[in-house]
Amino acid sequence: MSKFAVLGHGVVGSGVVELFYKNKNSILKKAGTDMDIKYILDLRDFPDSPYAEKFTKDFNDILNDDEVTVVAECMGGVEPAFTFVKSCLEKGKSVCTSNKELVAEKGDILLSIAKEKNCNFFFEASVGGAIPIIRPLHKCLAGNDITEVAGILNGTTNFILTKMYNDKMSFEDALKLAQELGYAEKDPTADVEGHDACRKICIISSLIFGKHVYPKNVFTKGISKVNLADVATADNMGYAVKLIASFKKLENGKILPAVMPMLIPFENIISKVDDVFNAVLVTGDGFDKAMFYGRGAGKLPTASAVMGDIIDAAKHKVNVFSQSWESASDDSFIECVESFTAKWYFRTAEKNISEYADGEITDANGETAFISKEMTFAQAKALEEKLSASAVIPVLA
Amino acid sequence: MSKFAVLGHGVVGSGVVELFYKNKNSILKKAGTDMDIKYILDLRDFPDSPYAEKFTKDFNDILNDDEVTVVAECMGGVEPAFTFVKSCLEKGKSVCTSNKELVAEKGDILLSIAKEKNCNFFFEASVGGAIPIIRPLHKCLAGNDITEVAGILNGTTNFILTKMYNDKMSFEDALKLAQELGYAEKDPTADVEGHDACRKICIISSLIFGKHVYPKNVFTKGISKVNLADVATADNMGYAVKLIASFKKLENGKILPAVMPMLIPFENIISKVDDVFNAVLVTGDGFDKAMFYGRGAGKLPTASAVMGDIIDAAKHKVNVFSQSWESASDDSFIECVESFTAKWYFRTAEKNISEYADGEITDANGETAFISKEMTFAQAKALEEKLSASAVIPVLA
Repeated sequence: MSKFAVLGHGVVGSGVVELFYKNKNSILKKAGTDMDIKYILDLRDFPDSPYAEKFTKDFNDILNDDEVTVVAECMGGVEPAFTFVKSCLEKGKSVCTSNKELVAEKGDILLSIAKEKNCNFFFEASVGGAIPIIRPLHKCLAGNDITEVAGILNGTTNFILTKMYNDKMSFEDALKLAQELGYAEKDPTADVEGHDACRKICIISSLIFGKHVYPKNVFTKGISKVNLADVATADNMGYAVKLIASFKKLENGKILPAVMPMLIPFENIISKVDDVFNAVLVTGDGFDKAMFYGRGAGKLPTASAVMGDIIDAAKHKVNVFSQSWESASDDSFIECVESFTAKWYFRTAEKNISEYADGEITDANGETAFISKEMTFAQAKALEEKLSASAVIPVLA
Repeated sequence: MSKFAVLGHGVVGSGVVELFYKNKNSILKKAGTDMDIKYILDLRDFPDSPYAEKFTKDFNDILNDDEVTVVAECMGGVEPAFTFVKSCLEKGKSVCTSNKELVAEKGDILLSIAKEKNCNFFFEASVGGAIPIIRPLHKCLAGNDITEVAGILNGTTNFILTKMYNDKMSFEDALKLAQELGYAEKDPTADVEGHDACRKICIISSLIFGKHVYPKNVFTKGISKVNLADVATADNMGYAVKLIASFKKLENGKILPAVMPMLIPFENIISKVDDVFNAVLVTGDGFDKAMFYGRGAGKLPTASAVMGDIIDAAKHKVNVFSQSWESASDDSFIECVESFTAKWYFRTAEKNISEYADGEITDANGETAFISKEMTFAQAKALEEKLSASAVIPVLA
């Protein structure tokens, strides 16, 4: 028998409870052990819930109950989630979380406690919502040297860009629609400016490289400056504009994670990932390319990933050390963004640009748009100034 | 220390050896234990191999060596693979295989021995080559009721259909090109007639439903009768023609696996999976839709999946019971294909078809093409006769 607790009864937490009782029979079969929810932690009252008797407002009820061996953290934010999760792990309870902020900021600390206490800290739901990506990366693809990742890891921005691209809506109108549909929050900063995608690429980078990558060390540029004229021109040139959270292993042994809008050639399947869907395209020496696609957010999709972790934690009480990474004492293993190399889309009033172009040169709102030869971020910045460019966007190779 | 053996030094087997030694350092780290290849079984001589001293022609060298705890079977075909794998499992050695024929025909027997002997029979490489699909299905998505699968599970046929679609090549010319490029065998029957895709959907269906589904019980129709005129007309109507290996859980409690060419609406991302790439689109109650995409065949991609299994088997010596299914005493749980329900693409010389159509009606090589209302396979068959239709192809919903 494995009893578990759910911290937080918001969107994700209530989804975990709903999914567990809906599919309990098949879940128990897959877990190979009897399982039930013993506590649900929330400061609010839910008197009409069919599970009203499971609710508690006191975290210590859960912490001090030795019968609870697995805890699902679905509260979000760093505190009090960090304190609660840390306490659980220190008591040897496995924790499964959907909280990307917690994992991106404190993952190394929590993973090290889990290792020491021989329990598990799982976080499949923290990246790409429902999409299985953490286990495939460290298990199924474990035989490979993973060299690159390009992810559409934020559904809100992907919805906005899809509306700009398909319906020729401006960024502002598309954001407003996203807010009306509940895809974007009132304060959309975390999504629109790329902070959410940044946390997720930090988690992926940490897992692949084995050292903690902090959000503050990752160059992050959102989509609020993306212009409809460039989305339309890119479309004509055979590219979709997407907010890409990327990771690269460089030849100098360093890594380069970054978040920025990029042009994706239509031949690349990730260019076809539209609306609120997320996808992660991974490159490695053995498998070449693989892509994982699905719903990156939402009640039951996120709950699906947490539930998968809970079942695994109930089955495997022993620490899964490969789903882990070390603390990083400095950021010297992260290459600075100035070295980021790509071909770049430029839009400029300057006509004399043929020496910089590599391929098609086209008209864009009375200006000239072209794809440059390969150059670094620093070089693109210099050329941007030289040409007084109206837009500069890197192209995904 | 975990020593393993590789059965077969053909394309996949030699890929496993290559990938292991290339990435040995990171593989050992992920396995958390020292690992090495002790034997490579092949009847041929490889005197120039850097691992020449590991070769043996006698399977008993491997079977009787207690130091060998994991065996990778990369021979293909049912025999002698079945006898070898069975003997290994009976001795408590875990086996990882890329052999879809073996798993589709004998999976239940081998899984039951693995369970009894508390070792593992892993087969990630048997479906979708490099694509992580087996573990995501029974682990990451374990909290869900998986209701539908639609897979492009054969790279050869997908390459041929892509050439028909993109380059307007006939089936015969595209097949010839595939043979020249090494994507199709001299005798292309297993690929072109859908038998290969059938084995893979049998494995997926068995894993999801928990009972063994045999290839002989699955309706299988290949692409050799797919006409260029229909591929081009479908394209104009907004559909790609793909060979789809499908699985459905029905309301009557039965399942309906099938392999047939289908029309995929362009809005469905699986319609964008081209060339030799494979993809599996899965539907479930919690996560909604997820797609797994990558290389379905080839030396290192297939070796990547086998290697992931070998590492997992070295880490977990205890039977992973959720990656399993039971034997089936009959096929009464499989619905007959006559109940397969879809909208259907028809091409016919008959002009008077508006009562059957649901949407666009178009000209196709002087005939009329239309998408029908939803009907069963049996009803579509009857309408085909009534209209003397030149082509009938179901549409993926």
